[in-house]
Amino acid sequence: MRYARVRHDGRSHWSRVEDDVVHLLSGSPIEGAPAVTGTVSLSTVELLPPVLPFVFYAVGLNYRAHLDHARAQGYAVGTTPTQAEVGYRANNALVGSGAAILVPPDLAGPVEAEGEVVAVVGRTLRRASRAQARESVFGWTIGNDVSARAWQHTDRTCWRSKNSDTFKPMGPWIETDVDPVAQTTTVRVNNEDRARFATGDMIFDPWDYLVEASRYVTFHPGDVLWMGAGATCPITPGAVVDIEITGIGTLSNPVLADSVAAPDGASD
Amino acid sequence: MRYARVRHDGRSHWSRVEDDVVHLLSGSPIEGAPAVTGTVSLSTVELLPPVLPFVFYAVGLNYRAHLDHARAQGYAVGTTPTQAEVGYRANNALVGSGAAILVPPDLAGPVEAEGEVVAVVGRTLRRASRAQARESVFGWTIGNDVSARAWQHTDRTCWRSKNSDTFKPMGPWIETDVDPVAQTTTVRVNNEDRARFATGDMIFDPWDYLVEASRYVTFHPGDVLWMGAGATCPITPGAVVDIEITGIGTLSNPVLADSVAAPDGASD
Repeated sequence: MRYARVRHDGRSHWSRVEDDVVHLLSGSPIEGAPAVTGTVSLSTVELLPPVLPFVFYAVGLNYRAHLDHARAQGYAVGTTPTQAEVGYRANNALVGSGAAILVPPDLAGPVEAEGEVVAVVGRTLRRASRAQARESVFGWTIGNDVSARAWQHTDRTCWRSKNSDTFKPMGPWIETDVDPVAQTTTVRVNNEDRARFATGDMIFDPWDYLVEASRYVTFHPGDVLWMGAGATCPITPGAVVDIEITGIGTLSNPVLADSVAAPDGASD
Repeated sequence: MRYARVRHDGRSHWSRVEDDVVHLLSGSPIEGAPAVTGTVSLSTVELLPPVLPFVFYAVGLNYRAHLDHARAQGYAVGTTPTQAEVGYRANNALVGSGAAILVPPDLAGPVEAEGEVVAVVGRTLRRASRAQARESVFGWTIGNDVSARAWQHTDRTCWRSKNSDTFKPMGPWIETDVDPVAQTTTVRVNNEDRARFATGDMIFDPWDYLVEASRYVTFHPGDVLWMGAGATCPITPGAVVDIEITGIGTLSNPVLADSVAAPDGASD
């Protein structure tokens, strides 16, 4: 099944997507069994981020190819992770498939796309076994961990390098029937293939992270866990960036220069 | 006015607190003007975290005294911040005043309390002037940025050092009528004063952070911004830690050893 959040007639709805048809739902399918309240064409709705998480988890370096690439560029990424440690992203940055990625006017240097498979947690999870972690995932979606490298390397935190508004496209929907580690991730810019990697070629898999993190934290229904990327691709204003993961779908976002100048931070 | 979220008769309610009386409210006062639906004694309710934020912002190093202390202990904290950069904490870790801080069974080394004043955002904010940032704050509460130093210095992220369940006490309520930078923060362990500092002795004040961050991110009603601590205090199981900020109140939490053994991460 494919579940999406959509804007239709000015309101947001949970929905079930079937080919080109969207069945609007009375509530979230993550914790209940909502009723169908209407059916509309997919082309008439705006896709929203498929969930707004209570906690937005993300894994930093989880593919050897990405680590090797970063080292080749001279970045101090440290050693290959030896334990499954989660990090965080911020909800303000989420947009759905189709929405624009806005490049801030004062950003110097490249913006890069990172295509990631995303676990959507379906139930409360604490001190989970691997079997419980597997059962806890409601479904899978796609994330683009848009990154401004200059800020990533100069700032103390990833606040604006990875969490500027629109920097976290997620979607187009949640697919409940897919094996995420048996898929292929392809990143396309203006319909040209720029990167392709085995989605499952991870250092630690999603269930490793859920088991390890749940030793200390409680996962809640709707939490998301972005699994890291195997490659990065520069993107520039005017381009369209697509992340396709077989078995799930394609997350597609245009890139635009944000035309509004930021005010001087010292203004009063 | 003092607004709290409380559990009463098994349900969570927004409420207005007046001395020892709690007026239960029909909804959130942050975005509306809810009606009073009942009145109960403060002693009969459980205090919850006063808000569950859409984004949980926190400032790392924002007091010179804290930086000097960290350097004296040999930590590589780097230079004094020259720009107002936000970081993040995670909602799973939030508990209200009165709830126990649970020390994980496998944690070696000290746990420390950090008393912080917290801004609660009341309206949507983007590219704010300093005047707009001032107007955007709904009120102020207190946070205890509980930190496990061993994990903070060995892990790549602050996921378990600062975001283990129960590590983010917040409360007891939101005070709307207080000047946060004219107050005094006192940390007490078992009723003994352990640290005291001027709440306003910050490198950057709350409005500096809101102005700077809102150049890139949209703040939403209910977002919280923890402002950093001027001192740290070791806490151990069996103790009670109180953070008092004049003009707001006292956030009080017992510290307990978590008695449940975490499972082996490799179990299946």
